[in-house]
Amino acid sequence: MKVLAITGGVGGAKLALGLASILGPEELEFVVNTGDDFEHFGLHISPDVDTLLYTLADLASQDHGWGRSDESWNCLESIRMLNGETWFQLGDKDLGLHLTRTQMLRNNHSLTDVVQHISNCLGISHRIYPMSDSPVRTIVETTTGELEFQQYFVRERCEPIVTGFRFEGIETARPVAQLLDQKFESVIICPSNPFVSVDPILAVPGMRQFLLSLDVPIVAVSPIVQGQALKGPTVKMMSELNFEQSNSQIGRHYQDLISGLIIDQLDEDSESSIRALGMEVKVDHTVMKSLDDKTSLARSAVDFASTLIKTC
Amino acid sequence: MKVLAITGGVGGAKLALGLASILGPEELEFVVNTGDDFEHFGLHISPDVDTLLYTLADLASQDHGWGRSDESWNCLESIRMLNGETWFQLGDKDLGLHLTRTQMLRNNHSLTDVVQHISNCLGISHRIYPMSDSPVRTIVETTTGELEFQQYFVRERCEPIVTGFRFEGIETARPVAQLLDQKFESVIICPSNPFVSVDPILAVPGMRQFLLSLDVPIVAVSPIVQGQALKGPTVKMMSELNFEQSNSQIGRHYQDLISGLIIDQLDEDSESSIRALGMEVKVDHTVMKSLDDKTSLARSAVDFASTLIKTC
Repeated sequence: MKVLAITGGVGGAKLALGLASILGPEELEFVVNTGDDFEHFGLHISPDVDTLLYTLADLASQDHGWGRSDESWNCLESIRMLNGETWFQLGDKDLGLHLTRTQMLRNNHSLTDVVQHISNCLGISHRIYPMSDSPVRTIVETTTGELEFQQYFVRERCEPIVTGFRFEGIETARPVAQLLDQKFESVIICPSNPFVSVDPILAVPGMRQFLLSLDVPIVAVSPIVQGQALKGPTVKMMSELNFEQSNSQIGRHYQDLISGLIIDQLDEDSESSIRALGMEVKVDHTVMKSLDDKTSLARSAVDFASTLIKTC
Repeated sequence: MKVLAITGGVGGAKLALGLASILGPEELEFVVNTGDDFEHFGLHISPDVDTLLYTLADLASQDHGWGRSDESWNCLESIRMLNGETWFQLGDKDLGLHLTRTQMLRNNHSLTDVVQHISNCLGISHRIYPMSDSPVRTIVETTTGELEFQQYFVRERCEPIVTGFRFEGIETARPVAQLLDQKFESVIICPSNPFVSVDPILAVPGMRQFLLSLDVPIVAVSPIVQGQALKGPTVKMMSELNFEQSNSQIGRHYQDLISGLIIDQLDEDSESSIRALGMEVKVDHTVMKSLDDKTSLARSAVDFASTLIKTC
């Protein structure tokens, strides 16, 4: 069974690590959001890709949920001394990756090649595809104007009230060709933010069609528990966009794509309303703290998808 | 008395620090070599300018003679992990300056503005002019081909045999306009490498004319003692270019420009041969280890120039 996992930032990377712990490189590949990529100090920064790379390479900071463990901040301190922009936390170790990626891109390597190179160097055996090699930039529309995603997310700390999103450059973006050549027996949408982590991936022209054309079970793990997001602005966004802050709404969000949704045991009572949307529901522990939690949820998601194959 | 000091890398910066210790910002300005500037990982790096900035700001590494004190190397370690180029020692703190400069240049600030901004932030009160705002690149011609200066100097450790130099971009370079507006009562050429630190400055079209038009004493401090350079490849270059490795040769090198040369007390016996070139000679301690050495030589150079004014 070969699984394609769709993932964004920190929440998604937790399940990604669980999946990578139970499935070998022949059984699992990843496609990752690059809508929150941006240029900073002339560097090409890919926050979601890096979170996955660092997580799978066991280099991720456990404290922050982003960036490298045992990081130092001497460069940033020097930028601060020179009155430069310090809202984005550029760690010294992390910078080495940004410089390497930026140089490779400048030398006409594709982002896919860059990610592959970095994966190899970091000893990551699972294949990671960026959602596209061409630049897509998630723009957050707010009541006080448009913001690039990192400005919204980091500089403004998700405080502005969201009215919508658009994905700049999406029209000309295409999924990575090597991804489209693969066959998968199931697709798992990790518990990432549906609006700004998963939607940019699904919005790449040809991506949704590719997933549907696989004609295999697509299951999502809900990123919310008891009406709260474990991390990040998912629920705040749902509220500001006048969506119900519930698993049913997550089900509706992915309704034309998924055949099953995994929700947390604490939300068991919403099972029937989600089933009414025409999808299967699995109730499980979705809060991932330990590696055991991640592995266990990964196993559960893979099993759930297998079950759905049998019912096809 | 307002002094213009012409300086390049580490040797020049020692005398520069001495001069800055005895003369106020109204009495002293600097013009610095940018021929060894280069692009690395997309960053604009100005080694000689930075050596002067760090030296005057008391941030220079005492161990290396370049870069920052108490430096860390986590970014470089990360680049090494990703199989990137590590021949140029990019320190974490140093990187903050490179990123800031590169961003300002990309935002259409001139190098002069960048240096002024960094000087202000680092509390440097003396004005520092890059030799030009337009890019000039020192190319070292060797028996095995041409090398960009940093490749020759750092990557190849000055090992290739030098046959000549050229300064790419020099034809269209001009001295910084603000420098040309200044009046100086003397000019001091610091003990930097004549071929790759001072010559690029003098080769900027208009620079030599500007210096001569000041019609003031120009004195140089010889960078060699007993036929040896205290630091760097000056003497190795003289030998490979079939020049006599002597203070007389330094005198000849600057013959049409300077009215006085300061040589070390150990080279007292060359005084008359230098005087025969038609310039004054002062014999002094030119080896600068302590701040006292630097201040003392600075005082000596300033006094020497004053004497030459009186004799004009």
